[in-house]
Amino acid sequence: MKGKFIVLEGPDRCGKSTQAKLLYNYLLEQGADVVLTREPGGTPTAEKIRQILLEPELDVRPVAELLLYEASRAQHTQEKIIPALHEGKIVICERYTMSTAAYQGYARGLDLKMIETLNKIATTGLKPDLTLVFLMSDKYFSSRGEYLFSDRLEREDKEFRDNMRQGYKNLVSRTENAYLLDADTDVDMIHHKVIDLLKAHHITDLCLSVKS
Amino acid sequence: MKGKFIVLEGPDRCGKSTQAKLLYNYLLEQGADVVLTREPGGTPTAEKIRQILLEPELDVRPVAELLLYEASRAQHTQEKIIPALHEGKIVICERYTMSTAAYQGYARGLDLKMIETLNKIATTGLKPDLTLVFLMSDKYFSSRGEYLFSDRLEREDKEFRDNMRQGYKNLVSRTENAYLLDADTDVDMIHHKVIDLLKAHHITDLCLSVKS
Repeated sequence: MKGKFIVLEGPDRCGKSTQAKLLYNYLLEQGADVVLTREPGGTPTAEKIRQILLEPELDVRPVAELLLYEASRAQHTQEKIIPALHEGKIVICERYTMSTAAYQGYARGLDLKMIETLNKIATTGLKPDLTLVFLMSDKYFSSRGEYLFSDRLEREDKEFRDNMRQGYKNLVSRTENAYLLDADTDVDMIHHKVIDLLKAHHITDLCLSVKS
Repeated sequence: MKGKFIVLEGPDRCGKSTQAKLLYNYLLEQGADVVLTREPGGTPTAEKIRQILLEPELDVRPVAELLLYEASRAQHTQEKIIPALHEGKIVICERYTMSTAAYQGYARGLDLKMIETLNKIATTGLKPDLTLVFLMSDKYFSSRGEYLFSDRLEREDKEFRDNMRQGYKNLVSRTENAYLLDADTDVDMIHHKVIDLLKAHHITDLCLSVKS
């Protein structure tokens, strides 16, 4: 495929969306043909699946939840990502297969081999050209006063986040073209590191070819 | 598990629902604790997934469709079927894993090994104690005047049905406790054969134990 596929990963509120928008605008300015999208969702059918996943009143069992994420991913990948890559576009996507391994696998305890199998089925094997994982320290969170571990739920919450963060670290260490970025630092500094990684992976070459 | 799990399978309009209701009423009369349910659907979350599957305007890619069926199955199995079986109930379910293999596999051409893997994940390995597959001859269909093969779509339709029917036959031949029933014959005669098969598999023992 002629295009390039960039995935931004990390826990909620790690700054993925901010960085995705900064990157999108940067690439637009460089004259690239860019698509900004996200999971779960990104197409009408995938958004309908997302609604089921986000409805707090619904009883959704862990394996059903996993299969819904994968169904949304399959639709999004086939309908939006792969056609854009065939057209030579740069696709920036918030969340992809690594989110499922970190959340449903490392944090919720579902079997990682099973998740890997489902990720492969849902994506028909499509892998990102670059995966950027944004992790903030837990200290940073508590300094905002949002996570005080005063009760059982909050302690479980801390354990969940610790497992997820460790999961992301493990996944990055065994995934090609995947990098950890310290989300505690300044937004612009992170943005520059993102651009440096795009250059190092020759993704910015697509901009130049469009410009010339 | 103390209960028994009976699955009714076959193409649309093969008489599954009629036979399921006759069987349900028969078992109720015999004093059994029975649950009648169906796929896709059977629980609030699974019905929401069913709505996506049945919406004609939505673009749903084959693998996404497959994963949605499996998500609906996972929810239905965990939330409704397995708890009922633990309580010693007889569960009658219209469609289960074999439908996916026959429709998405044999008829639509998706990989059968992949479907088998997904069926196992969605059901956590729960297999029916008895699977009854109702097949009518294609001749029967055309005699109703519903399927005249006058155009391309109708010929494709015929090929689709032939592949599905052959799929069901292959699946029955390699599935334990699965039986083909000729859906062209009289409704009452089929019902009696169904009862005979329940007796042969000691499923009716559960009625007697409730009665005594």
